[in-house]
This record gives sequence, structure tokens and C-alpha cells, in this order.
Amino acid sequence: MNHTEAMSSHTGVLFRLSTFGESHGPAIGVIVDGCPPRLPLDESDIQPDLDRRRPGQSRLVTQRDEADRCRILSGVWKGYTTGAPIAIVVDNADHRSGAYDHLVDVYRPSHADFTYDAKYGIRSIAGGGRSSARETIARVAAGAIARKLLRTVAGIEVIGWVSAVGGIDAASAIDTATVAMADVEAHPTRCPDPAFAERFAAEIDAARRAGDSVGGIVTCVARGVPAGLGEPAFDRLDADLAKAVMSLPATKAIEIGSGIAAAAMRGSVHNDPFEPGPDGRPHTTANRSGGIQGGISNGADVVVRAAFKPTATINHEQATVTRDGSPTTLAATGRHDPCVVPRAVPLVESAMLLTLADHYLRHRAIDVLGPVDVD
Amino acid sequence: MNHTEAMSSHTGVLFRLSTFGESHGPAIGVIVDGCPPRLPLDESDIQPDLDRRRPGQSRLVTQRDEADRCRILSGVWKGYTTGAPIAIVVDNADHRSGAYDHLVDVYRPSHADFTYDAKYGIRSIAGGGRSSARETIARVAAGAIARKLLRTVAGIEVIGWVSAVGGIDAASAIDTATVAMADVEAHPTRCPDPAFAERFAAEIDAARRAGDSVGGIVTCVARGVPAGLGEPAFDRLDADLAKAVMSLPATKAIEIGSGIAAAAMRGSVHNDPFEPGPDGRPHTTANRSGGIQGGISNGADVVVRAAFKPTATINHEQATVTRDGSPTTLAATGRHDPCVVPRAVPLVESAMLLTLADHYLRHRAIDVLGPVDVD
Amino acid sequence: MNHTEAMSSHTGVLFRLSTFGESHGPAIGVIVDGCPPRLPLDESDIQPDLDRRRPGQSRLVTQRDEADRCRILSGVWKGYTTGAPIAIVVDNADHRSGAYDHLVDVYRPSHADFTYDAKYGIRSIAGGGRSSARETIARVAAGAIARKLLRTVAGIEVIGWVSAVGGIDAASAIDTATVAMADVEAHPTRCPDPAFAERFAAEIDAARRAGDSVGGIVTCVARGVPAGLGEPAFDRLDADLAKAVMSLPATKAIEIGSGIAAAAMRGSVHNDPFEPGPDGRPHTTANRSGGIQGGISNGADVVVRAAFKPTATINHEQATVTRDGSPTTLAATGRHDPCVVPRAVPLVESAMLLTLADHYLRHRAIDVLGPVDVD
Amino acid sequence: MNHTEAMSSHTGVLFRLSTFGESHGPAIGVIVDGCPPRLPLDESDIQPDLDRRRPGQSRLVTQRDEADRCRILSGVWKGYTTGAPIAIVVDNADHRSGAYDHLVDVYRPSHADFTYDAKYGIRSIAGGGRSSARETIARVAAGAIARKLLRTVAGIEVIGWVSAVGGIDAASAIDTATVAMADVEAHPTRCPDPAFAERFAAEIDAARRAGDSVGGIVTCVARGVPAGLGEPAFDRLDADLAKAVMSLPATKAIEIGSGIAAAAMRGSVHNDPFEPGPDGRPHTTANRSGGIQGGISNGADVVVRAAFKPTATINHEQATVTRDGSPTTLAATGRHDPCVVPRAVPLVESAMLLTLADHYLRHRAIDVLGPVDVD
Repeated sequence: MNHTEAMSSHTGVLFRLSTFGESHGPAIGVIVDGCPPRLPLDESDIQPDLDRRRPGQSRLVTQRDEADRCRILSGVWKGYTTGAPIAIVVDNADHRSGAYDHLVDVYRPSHADFTYDAKYGIRSIAGGGRSSARETIARVAAGAIARKLLRTVAGIEVIGWVSAVGGIDAASAIDTATVAMADVEAHPTRCPDPAFAERFAAEIDAARRAGDSVGGIVTCVARGVPAGLGEPAFDRLDADLAKAVMSLPATKAIEIGSGIAAAAMRGSVHNDPFEPGPDGRPHTTANRSGGIQGGISNGADVVVRAAFKPTATINHEQATVTRDGSPTTLAATGRHDPCVVPRAVPLVESAMLLTLADHYLRHRAIDVLGPVDVD
Repeated sequence: MNHTEAMSSHTGVLFRLSTFGESHGPAIGVIVDGCPPRLPLDESDIQPDLDRRRPGQSRLVTQRDEADRCRILSGVWKGYTTGAPIAIVVDNADHRSGAYDHLVDVYRPSHADFTYDAKYGIRSIAGGGRSSARETIARVAAGAIARKLLRTVAGIEVIGWVSAVGGIDAASAIDTATVAMADVEAHPTRCPDPAFAERFAAEIDAARRAGDSVGGIVTCVARGVPAGLGEPAFDRLDADLAKAVMSLPATKAIEIGSGIAAAAMRGSVHNDPFEPGPDGRPHTTANRSGGIQGGISNGADVVVRAAFKPTATINHEQATVTRDGSPTTLAATGRHDPCVVPRAVPLVESAMLLTLADHYLRHRAIDVLGPVDVD
Repeated sequence: MNHTEAMSSHTGVLFRLSTFGESHGPAIGVIVDGCPPRLPLDESDIQPDLDRRRPGQSRLVTQRDEADRCRILSGVWKGYTTGAPIAIVVDNADHRSGAYDHLVDVYRPSHADFTYDAKYGIRSIAGGGRSSARETIARVAAGAIARKLLRTVAGIEVIGWVSAVGGIDAASAIDTATVAMADVEAHPTRCPDPAFAERFAAEIDAARRAGDSVGGIVTCVARGVPAGLGEPAFDRLDADLAKAVMSLPATKAIEIGSGIAAAAMRGSVHNDPFEPGPDGRPHTTANRSGGIQGGISNGADVVVRAAFKPTATINHEQATVTRDGSPTTLAATGRHDPCVVPRAVPLVESAMLLTLADHYLRHRAIDVLGPVDVD
Repeated sequence: MNHTEAMSSHTGVLFRLSTFGESHGPAIGVIVDGCPPRLPLDESDIQPDLDRRRPGQSRLVTQRDEADRCRILSGVWKGYTTGAPIAIVVDNADHRSGAYDHLVDVYRPSHADFTYDAKYGIRSIAGGGRSSARETIARVAAGAIARKLLRTVAGIEVIGWVSAVGGIDAASAIDTATVAMADVEAHPTRCPDPAFAERFAAEIDAARRAGDSVGGIVTCVARGVPAGLGEPAFDRLDADLAKAVMSLPATKAIEIGSGIAAAAMRGSVHNDPFEPGPDGRPHTTANRSGGIQGGISNGADVVVRAAFKPTATINHEQATVTRDGSPTTLAATGRHDPCVVPRAVPLVESAMLLTLADHYLRHRAIDVLGPVDVD
């Protein structure tokens, strides 16, 4: 076996985060470096998003019981950010590593057990616990700071929801331009359309009763993004959004605007015509671009869709192999989410918030010269 | 107008590239920094991929006539890389910036004209030319070096093809595991299935005759990737692939393995069972994971699909606005690709090659300690 | 006042650290990301270096009483690193922020009070506490991991000592090639020459009794560094060492090998002749290069000297201004080090250890191809 | 022999450069990425600094004859930067690699010959040529852009001069606060004091006549730097200056402000008292801090001194070894500088300019929130 390399757990150019923690260790945490000073901030800005992410919110998600209370250890003074790194820690109240001891010698199918072992050569439940969804606590906490920053400095709002579960797609019933967070939070599925929400709940329940799991789609929109965020070539806004979302556990696809459907269209249908907007600036009369053209925001809503696979942990007996290479079978018995998408909503939002905050600051950095007329 | 920020034109942690050049300037180029020394390399390793990317290959692509000959300016000595940065330059033979003068005061719909102007506050055709597909010459040249490296040190092969055009999807007719580059290059559409290739050609021709354009899908596979590439958390292999592919012009979606279809599946169907492989290591009996689990390669083929929108440049009259905010209409008259996907194949390959080369080197960096047994 | 920007608290390309914490907040901490898996590690590898850095060791250093006990929160499993980020936290037992309340409206001369306020626009003692020497706890903890790694994989040893205090220079009495840590730790001044150690102690005591402070020099050597570490151009080994050491509080100069004296020499005196070494490889018969030529290690000892200014906090009355611009005077009364260099020894070592660990891993990354003969 | 790793040839967080080229290849070049748009720029802004760096300016420097004409290949449109990467190329008119063929099998003492071979395992004159001072053309060209930017947006001026040659130190005769570039450029030694300039010239001539070389010191000052540039912890302004200057060929030491002399001082002497400045802001009545406190600029002049070793190439016969490990002797016969410091002046300036430009932009990025009062 080829044993190698360590993990890259930080991201961002100016609004940077570095995360740590395993599901079965004492704590999960994040350092946010590069947050502008003088932003009003305390734990109450962060806890609500953690609560949306946390397990045990309803029968639809895992019953693992974690309070997930955050503590700010640095970077805030008398309710304002100081410019120093902001460290946030969430203790793992319920870290029963013993519950996983029977898995030390077997690879769960479509989990990260085998790949972590191939990479690190150490079959640690604690290290493998790094691949747990609990790692996303760090992103959601950092994303909440980005949310406060973007709202405060630019009026940007980011909101996500569940738009599909299993084969059921609610997209046609939901107006991306007007969905409000209250609509989303009104139902444990986080689908803002009540009828589809019920259908999603039924689908998730059916999967759970069958000892199975089911996939779904999260749609996320950013409103109020000014034109000009993102960079040509590699760090396009859509490229950085794609990376941030695809780095979430269980994602298999990401779409911007028209997404995959664009492949089937003609240009005369797909292009977004311009018209003078109410503020005199160019507005598009459609938004197949998803708010991004040439990798740079155009002022329209930025729209992202992310597809999540069904949870790998199921109660069915599955073929697998042991660590020493012998065939065996495995069926899970522990707590798990039959469908990740309701809890994935704040994750996708955090991916979008962190990406936008970084690009917002990068964008500011060099607007240092007055207008010119080269004609 | 909010005028800001500069472009980020480099990428990679260890296998790094930095690119420059506009479509209407004198040259396009790239510096590849971090390529291991002692790799056999000369222009003949690079030119074939540039030729696959270049315009004028067939009636299906733009007729702009560019030889796109590359010159290596540094980093190679007597046919071997020296470890020094490798600079590659391709002259722009056909840079007629005058051809675009009539566009100085109008924004083409679904182009980057408006967003570049919003960002940089300078309506330069040359700078806007940075958003031209010619920028991808730099990536393809660098990708060719990555191809040579990955083939030499690890036997990794990357091959892409066109799997859909317009609404026509050839996926069912193509065996991802066995497609050969000769099959792909046998037809100007770069579809390895001859029947679908003809249908794609007809669809593209139809769009061209209608003064319109059409989208499509490129599928790309990497074979021979060892288990263990990619990192947990942010720099997952799938996340970095998503960023690299989504940073290509005109992409609107990216899928890994099962992709969007995963959202409709149950876990009992989606999971990839393990069996002992012929080499004694765990193999999966299916590949819905697309060769990546928990962000790390598992030894199976890495499979990516990228959706491209229809070319924004069409001959139809479209509504738009001028730079000073007045409504107007615009219809293109110049040369353009009615469908980008045949020429996008080497682009998607380069995105995959560059990502894999970087992760391959990162993977090597820290395999410095012997095996341990913690049980 | 020009209020701007946030702090950059991470460093390293492959062996990366990200730090947080203020002297008057609840804790100081660090995330080490990129440490190879399978390294034996626990708190006992880290605590000794923290103890060497900690206040209250002798009458020569500040009497602030801090146990500075470290806790590892992640990245270690059953005594081995897992490849996951290693988080280390040290609680601030003695964080009496009230002790600094009288300083809120006045800038201490040659402290960071004014510059932090100019930069961040918030006169937080907590944030200003980021400029405290307690921030270096994070570096020393991370450096201890680097020490374990370098010792384990390459037999590299790094050792520093005090070579000058005030105008007294012990360099002529100390053989850089043979100093042992036991010699250094034998005296609270951390000067390995007993006679000079006493003179240094007397000089520090004299400064303390005078309510004053005094500067000094730390010399640090790395033994066993293989030839080939460091990179041409910007990331030269000497350049990265210079940055790491100059980023320590209170440093005003850094020298490599011959240092400033090189400016007065002729080449015929300064050049290091080569001879065949006992292992058949080229050895230098002198080491004015300080183990680095062209930015890359040559296998000889890497030798660095760092000059530290006298502590800015003194009991003398000094002219200064208040936050609102009025002239005033200030005399410190609190605990402080009359001379930082004894406690700076582990800091300089950590700067060197972290730099070498990063370059060691970078060096490994691309030794992927066999030997070639280009002649 | 341990063959490894590639070169890192880029630097900067927001104002970034990536360089390429060997002394004996066809060209040297640089890509500057991140320069703000709308900066007036053409070759005439860059050529003067290249002319100051170029060989053949006087009998005091190497007679290698290079015009070193720069060409801008991208990123500039009608005399203004566009925000796109700016590529600059300088052709090597005089690349006679044959002149070095006799060195293929021998390591020149105190050159990079051995260390490059140890690192890369390929004894390429072209690659070794990467260690040539010609690589610094790229930095000087990029530095000239930084100079134009800093002057335009902030009125910052950077000026360097030779303050010591051999054992002769002119520091006492030069007022750092008032030196003008015209004074510096008035003499080929680039010493602004005419009497010392003559003594330096005599010392250099003496070394040259003796077939020897001699070291020296460059002092460099930045005037007009606003308070607030630089970041706490790792990316302190002094730390980044130290790295940038120490990455120049032949540097052995760097000092900020009081430099090494600080080690011998008491705090009561070293501290810089504050007084209200003419603009109402705090000014220091001395500048032993060198314009930087706690890693952040305080508004005073930033003052750096860099020590350069004597040129390694001398005509004396020296002991060395061949590539296969046999002892031999070597005496240079070719063209070389007997003293690098006159030509190093624009190099040190460029190191300072590039560092300041990057921190200036980083500083701007996050001044996004209004003033607060936390008391």
C-alpha cells in the first residue's frame, strides 16, 4: 500500500479559514483569518446556522444528540472583530469512538474508509472521523461570519433550500427570486413549497423505513451581489463556487444557472439579453447565466444547484472487503441520516458565503485608480 | 460604475502555472513552475495537444486561421526539464483587433464584455480578449507537460470526448472504460461512436446554418490513477477537478461519477461494493463514485462530465445596451464556433491533467514514514 | 485615521500552520496542517519546548506565572499522527486584561499600540494582545512537531543559544559545530559558555535594576540538513529563514553564515573551498556560506544569527502621545522581561524548524524521475 | 546523490509575480498578475530601472554587453493597464552557453553549481543559469511597475544606494532622510557621497586589479509609506522585506532600522518617543524602529540595509572538486563584477517596491467598515 500525504484544511485568499477536528475527538474548530476589523460579532451570530446544521432536529435526520454550542476564543473584543484571527471551537459532547471499533478492519462501501487508509496508512477511526460530516461545523461557523460581513458591507443575502429528493423535483414550484428563509425553515425538509415538502418527507421516511437512504438537490441563491466579483482565468467566481460546493461531503454535481440543461440549448435561446435597468446599469432580462458571465458576477442573482448522493450508510447487507483483503459483508446498525439534503442546506450556503466574502475583499483590494477614457 | 480588482492567472500548489495573453495581443503564454527535473520534454510533446485545440481543424469549428506553434523559452536543457520554470509562448498570428472596434461601445449578450467593464473600468478589446478562448492555449500547453509527467511517473492516461451535442446524448453508446484516443480523433466532432458522431455533426451544421450555436457535453476519464490522491476538507480531488473544469470558458455544470443522477437514487443502488481485486487490493464492482470517495481517489477510473453552454456569439439580432446605457440590438458577423465542445475536449483533459499532476506531487511529499500498526 | 486590513496568521506551503489567540484572551492555539501521518507524537513531545519559552523560569525573565500546558485536540490517534490537522491549545491562566486598562488611551513607545490602532481602528487590548510574545507559543508548539518530524525522518537537529547580550559578544568562545543543548540549558541565560553566561546575567540584572532593558543576539544552527533543500528565486532557504526569524517579535537583523561581515571581505577570503568529503560527496572546508549556496542547502551546518532589540517596556518615563493626539509621558510598572533573548532561543529554533520541515517536504515532492546523463 | 524538487518562482499575495529564464537561454521574463487596472504604463516606465541594473554601465561592473530591452506582451491597452496579467520579456542577446562548457564537470566554490546539482540531478549550464544574476531582470521589471503604482496611488518613493564597500562604511556621511536619486546616479558606484564614492571606486578597482572581488552594503529607504501596512504574526512588513531582500543573489544579512546595533542597546536609548506630528497624528522623534513597529508601518521612513558578499567568481586558483568527486583547482577567466553592490541597488529597491505594493493592496482589501468606539 502506498501511504502518503497530509490534509489541506485551509482555503481562501483574503478571507481564509483553517479547520480541525474529528467526529470522535474532543472538539471541532476553525480559525477565520482575514475578517475585517470593526464588524459587530458574537456567538449569537454563529449559533443559529450551527443549529440549522445540527443533528437531531427532526425525525428526518440523524438522532445523534449534539448541542453544538460554539465558543469564540479570539479575535473579538467588546462585540467587535479586532482584525486578529477568530478561533471558534465546538465541543463534541457525544464522541463515542468505541461505537466504531467493529469497523477497524472492514471498509464500508462508498465511504472514505478505504481511501483514507490508502492515503494515510493508519486506520484511525479518529482520523477517518475527519471525513465525518461533523467537519462541516467549522465551515458553517465560518460561513456565519461571512454572512454577517456580506450583509453588513454589501447587503448580500444567501439562502438555500431543498429542491429535489429522490426523483422528485420541486424546481418548477419554487420561484428562486423570492424564496425567503422563513419559508425554508417552516418545514424540516427545508423545501419552501409545502406540497413538495410533504412529498419529500414521505420519500425520506420511506427510505428510512426500508433501511435505505436517498439523494437530493440543494438550490442556493445569492442576492445583491454587485457586478465585478470573481476573476478571469482560474479563480472565476463560478469555478471557486464549484470547488467550495464540491468539497462538501456527498456532492456529485454542481450547476450554475442553466446548468446541465445548457448543453441541450441553442445560443438564441440561452443568451441573456440586456436591457437598461432601473438604476441605469445593464440588467439581463433572463438569468440563464446564473449571475456570472466570463467568471465575473453581473449583478443578477447568483444561482447554484448541488446534487448530493444518498447517504452511504445503510442497513442493507453489502459486499465489501476487510483491511487484509478478504471478502465479507456489512450492514450498518447505528444512527445516520437517511437523506443529507435538509441538513446540507446551511453547508451549501456556507460554501457560497465563504467564496463571496473572499472575492468581495479581493475585489476591493485594487480599485485604487480613477476612471480613464481610452478611446 | 464600480471599478475594481485584477485577475488571478495562476493555479496549483506544487505543479503551478501562471498564464498571460489576450486574443488580440502579440502572444499567449504560460510559465509552468514546479515540474520535476529530468523529465524528457520538447515542443513535440506539446504541439499535438495545441493542434487538437486550434481553430480551423474542420468546418465544424471556427475558421480563424492560427498555426499556434509553441516555443519553449526556458526550463529545458538538451531535451530534459531542469527544474527551472518552463516558459512557453505561442504567437498570435492573426490578431486583428480592428475587427472588434465596432464592439467598443456595446455589450454582447452572455459574453464577458459587461462584467469585465464592471470589474476593470476599461473597455479594452485587448483586455476583454483575456476572456477569449485563446487564453486556454496556455492551459493546454501546460496540460501537455502534465500529461508527459503523469504518463512517465505513474502510467496515468487522460482522455476526453464529446458525449452529447444539443439534446442528443451518446453516453449509452460509449464504454468509458475502453474509449481510445484514436477513436475520438477519428471524427471532427470528437465523438468516438461513429453513428452519434454523424448525428452531432448534423446538429452542429444545422445550428451553423441557422446562424445559431448549440451546447454539448464532454466526458473525460483518467485511467491508472493510484488510490490516495486528493485531500480531505477543501482540496478534495473532486473539488479541485470541479474548479479546474468550471474555470474553462462556457462551462455551466460538472458531474463526478453518477453526477446529478445520484440525487434520484437510493443508497442501496448507488453504493459501490468492494471485492478483492486481482492485485489483492480492494476494487469496486461498480464506479458510481467516479473513482473518488471522501475526496480521495480509490484506484478506479476518475470520470468527469462537463456541460458547455452554446456559444454566445450568434448571427441573430439580440437586444442589448450600449456602454452608456442605451438600448440597442446586435448581430454578430465574424468567425465563431457554432459549438465549442469538439475543441473543448483537450481543454477538459488539460484541466484534469493539471489537477492530477499537482495532487500527485502533493501526495508524494509526505510519504516519509514507515508503516505502523496502531491496534 | 486610515483603518484597514486583517492579519495573516498562517504560513508554510506543505507543512502549514495557522495560529490564533491574544495574551489576554482565554487561549492561544495553532493548527498544524500537512504533517505526515504515522509520526509518533503526544503532548510530551511539545511541552519541553513550551517550558523553555515560558515566563517565570528564572529571575532573568518576566515573572508572569503561566503553566502553559498544551493539549492536542485533533490529528493524533493512539500516539501517531493521522494526517489530519493537529490542533494544539494552551489556556491563558493569567489573563488579567484589567491590568492594561490604563493603556487604552496612550501609545507605548516602540510597541505595536499605535500601528495596530492605525491598521485596525480599534484600540483593543485583546487585539493588541495579538502582538504579545504569547502569540509565539503557537509557533513553539508547531516547531516542536517539526523537530520531531525532522529528527525522525532525516536526523536533523536544530539548536540555538544566546551569543551576545548588550555589547558583550561571546561568539569567539563558542564552537558552533559542537554546542549541545545540555550546555545551553545549563544556565538561565542560555549561553553555553559559562563565563560569558555569568557576564550576560550580570548585564541583564544591571538593566533590570536600572528599570531598563537590553538587547542581544541568538545564534541557531541546524545540523544534518541534506544538500538540496530550498528553491531558487523567491523561496530560497535563506530567504525563508530570514522571513521566519524576522517575523519573531523584536528582531531587527538576521545574518546567514558570514553575515554582515561578508560586506567587508574579499572573495578570495570569503569563498568556501570544496574538498571530497568522507562520504565521497563535496564538502566545504569552511562555512562562510552558512550551509546555503544559491539559496539551497549544501550539506554543511545551516547557521543563522538574529539580533533582538531591547524590550520596549521599561520603567523610565518616556515621551509619548495619547490616542487623541495630546503629548504625555508614560512609565511602565508591570512585569516584563529585561532581556528577551534567553526566552527567544526556542523561538528562533522554531522558526528554523518550521522552515526546514516545509522545505524538506517540498524537496521530497518531486524526486520522481531516475538519473539522466545529458552530456 | 539525492535528486529532487522544482523551483518556486512566484511570490506575492495580491501583487504577484512569476518569473522565468536562464542567463544562457533565449530570454528572461516575468508575469505580473494583480496589478490594478487603469494605471498608465508603457515600456518607458520599466526601461530606466533595467538600464540601472544592466551590465556594462562602467568599468566597475561586468563588461557583458546586453541591451536588456523590455517588451510588454500583454495586460496593457492604449497606455493603461487592463487588469490582465502583464507579461514582460527581455531577450538574451549575448547567450554564449559554450563559454561555460569547461565548467560542466567542476563545481565553482561558493557558487550554486553543487547545490543545484544536488537538488536537480542535472548539471545544466542553462538550469544553473537560473542562479545567474540575470534572473533579477524579472524582478527589476516588475519592481518598476510597483514603483509606478505606489507613486501614483500613494506618493510612496523608494530609493537605494551603496553605503559600504569592503570595510569602508559611508553611513555617517549620508542623511537617509534626504538622499535623492540624482545624487545616487551621479557616480557609477551609486554612493551619494562624492568622497566616499571615490573611495569605493578605488576599493573596487583594487579588488579587480588583484583578480579578486569585494563585498558591500546597500541601504534602501521608502518614504511616504502610510501607517498600517504589514500584518501581525507571519506576514509582518519587516519579515516580508527580509525575505524579499534575502532572496536576492549574494545577500548574507538584512537589517531594519537600528539593525544589529540594537542588540547592544538599552531600551531607554532604543525606544522611539512619540510626539504629535504636524498632521496631528503620532510621529516618532527618532527612527530606530526603521518605520516598522510590531510588523506594521508607523508612517516614518522604512529603512533597510542589506549586506552582499564578495562575488564568488575570482581569478585566483581555488581548491574544489569535480562532479565525480576528485579534487582539482579552478581559476575564473571570464567577465564578472568585482563588486555587485552598484548594480544591486535597483535589485534591493525592487524587493522593497514589490513587498510594499503587495501589502498596500492587502491593506486596502478590508477597510470596509466605519469607525467604532468600544470604550
